[in-house]
This record gives sequence, structure tokens and C-alpha cells, in this order.
Amino acid sequence: MGAGSGPAATIPDRPTLPNVGIIIMFSPNGPDDMQRKTFRNMQCPIARSLERVGEWWSILILRDAFYGTKRFDEFQRNLDIAPNMLTRRLNGLVEEGLLEKRQYSERPPRYEYVLTDCGRDFRPVLLALLAWGNRNFAPEGPSVQIVDRETGKVVEPMLVDTENGEPLQMGRRHVLRAGPAADESTRARLSSATSHMTTAAPAAPAAPLAREAGKVA
Amino acid sequence: MGAGSGPAATIPDRPTLPNVGIIIMFSPNGPDDMQRKTFRNMQCPIARSLERVGEWWSILILRDAFYGTKRFDEFQRNLDIAPNMLTRRLNGLVEEGLLEKRQYSERPPRYEYVLTDCGRDFRPVLLALLAWGNRNFAPEGPSVQIVDRETGKVVEPMLVDTENGEPLQMGRRHVLRAGPAADESTRARLSSATSHMTTAAPAAPAAPLAREAGKVA
Repeated sequence: MGAGSGPAATIPDRPTLPNVGIIIMFSPNGPDDMQRKTFRNMQCPIARSLERVGEWWSILILRDAFYGTKRFDEFQRNLDIAPNMLTRRLNGLVEEGLLEKRQYSERPPRYEYVLTDCGRDFRPVLLALLAWGNRNFAPEGPSVQIVDRETGKVVEPMLVDTENGEPLQMGRRHVLRAGPAADESTRARLSSATSHMTTAAPAAPAAPLAREAGKVA
Repeated sequence: MGAGSGPAATIPDRPTLPNVGIIIMFSPNGPDDMQRKTFRNMQCPIARSLERVGEWWSILILRDAFYGTKRFDEFQRNLDIAPNMLTRRLNGLVEEGLLEKRQYSERPPRYEYVLTDCGRDFRPVLLALLAWGNRNFAPEGPSVQIVDRETGKVVEPMLVDTENGEPLQMGRRHVLRAGPAADESTRARLSSATSHMTTAAPAAPAAPLAREAGKVA
């Protein structure tokens, strides 16, 4: 993705379209797209993940790839995204190893984009976003749901410990700790963190616990 | 967040800093920050979630809030983020209802930012990102891990059906379906989707199944 690629990356590859506009910005660091520093060298696995998918469009492109979308014009139609932007985002996802670009026709040469193992492995993040969106931003009721095909029931996902199936209770039973590759600053950061993730919360009243039952994590 | 707020929102509030630069861009739609359309009106719960946290910095700000960070200068120091950008992102997260701005000192007036219920509910997304980052982007080994305080064991999270504890098997046992609030286009989209999420995959060979065992979702 465009991280660290500097101003040149933000100049679209079709500057002569009829609706060209000229935008002049006064900025200490340029607009967001240039101002962004890379998260790649941060040790935090969340930051490293965002380095791969933190662009506005990338997560929706991955979502559509999970829906079975493969071809440029299909992505463009589904997402209503500018072609130069789609090209950049697809190339970025290919560079990061989340999509593979495959030729499916020789004459004319045509390509499709399919999820790699690493891309497919992003699915839990999408499902967690879906569940969070349904719980918080669907006042009219859910439009997309996870359903158990066998029972027909709507499924509310929850994060558990793979080994024993017990729900994650961050800040109570489960905490974040520095791993074997953590450097000093990561260790310091984790040991000074005080809440929600890393240390046992003060004895929680019954209501919040009940509120969290039936929720992911 | 800046969605739909137009060009004005991208002009930083400190144009007279010593390192001001002028950037001229030729673009059909302006740079990414302006070109972005709102996802708010899309029915997809993933798109609606990204509307709230799809900015580069917002997810890292939420991560730090989970670590216990509350004050402007702490966020700024931890994230090494420009103050005007941090102000915008914090205000956006407050507007979206993920953070609450609370006065903790009257003289001088000082504020802190704490997670709301909706913000705390974002935790599973962060944990899924963390697990994905550890699996895919930590060649030197994990730097941050989820640990069971009782056993000391490292926890690999997995998504299950809250009701029966069974692992999500998207495209096999579990599928995405249109919910009660789905409009025609969402229904059409879901019914035409062909893979990974919505329809039973062709009988999967043993290897990919084994590969997915022990993984989230």
C-alpha cells in the first residue's frame, strides 16, 4: 500500500480526465495520505495489521473478495470506487500478500484477484467488524447476519480460547503480555498499561458482566 | 470523522508552522481524504463499522484507550502523532460515540477521553487484528500475546457461536444471509455472492480444514 511512498503516490495516473480539479493545500506535512507514517516497524501486531489493511478501501475490497468478487470491473461496480484508486488498493493488497493476481484469459490478457491464505485468514476480523456493526450501528435492525445452515438460527460470534473453548475475559482472566520478541519499549508499554486489556480490572459489578455475556470477547 | 466534510476538513489548523509546504495535486476527485465517500448509508455492517474507525489513526487510538491511555498528551506521546491530527481523530471518535470526553480538572480545565460502552465493544475487533498480525506479520515471533492469567498459557482466540460454543465455519456450516432490514440491493448482493462467506464451498480437502483448525473462525 502507499505507506512511505511519498507524494508521488498520491498523484493519480490519469491527470487529464475532463473533471480534473486542482487542489492546493497548505500543510505542515501534506494531507493525510502523505502525512501517514508507516506502522510497519512498530512491534504491535495491531499496528502491523493496519499497515496492510488500514486504507479506507482495503477492508471493503477484502470483504468483496470473501463474497466471491474477483475481477476489476466487478470490484469497481460493487464498490463504486474510482478506477485509479481501485488499481492502487488492489496492487497494495497484492504486494502485501493478501490477494493474488491471476491471469484467467490470454487473449485478451485478463486478470483476477483471489484471496491468498493470509487474505483468507483475515476473515475473523471481518466477522468481528460485522458483529460490532450489527450491535451498534443498525438501529433499523440487521441487514446482514451470520446464520447456522443446519439450524437456521442467527449466530452471534464470540471469541474463545481455542484450546479450552472458554470465553475471553480481557482484563480479568486474560491479559496482554509481552511476547518473546518484545523489545524494551513494548515491554515498558505493556507493563505500564493499566486497564481493560492488560491488568485485572477492579472487581466488576454484576451488570457489566451480564452485559458482556453473549458478546464477542 | 471527516466523512463528507469536504475539502475544508483537510486544511490543517496550523498553516503557518515553519515547515509549511504547498502541495499541488492534479486529481479528478482530490486526494483520498476528499475523495472518500461516506459508508454511513451503506447497509453493510462492515462498511458502517469502518465509517466509525476506518481512519488510519482511529484504531490505534482505540487500542491505546484499551491500554488505559486517557489524556491528550499521553496519546500524542504514545502514538507520535501530530496534534492537529490527534485532535481531529479524538473529536471524531467522540462524535461517533466510541469515546467520551470528560473534564477531570476545573482549574485549569483539563479533559480525558474514556471508552464508552460502544467503544469497549470494539475489543473483539482489536483482538482479531492482534491475532492476525501475530500469525502473519511477526516473522521474529510475537511481541504481544494474549495470556491466560490462571494457567500462564498463551491463548489463540477463535470465533464460536455464542449459543453452542461451536467454531464458526464460514461457507460450510455458517453463511451470511440477508437480515430483516436488508433492502433489495443487499439481498441481491448476498444471493449472488458465491464464495467463502455465503455459500457452501465445494467439499474442502482435508489439508485446508486442518490448516483452519486452531484458527479464529
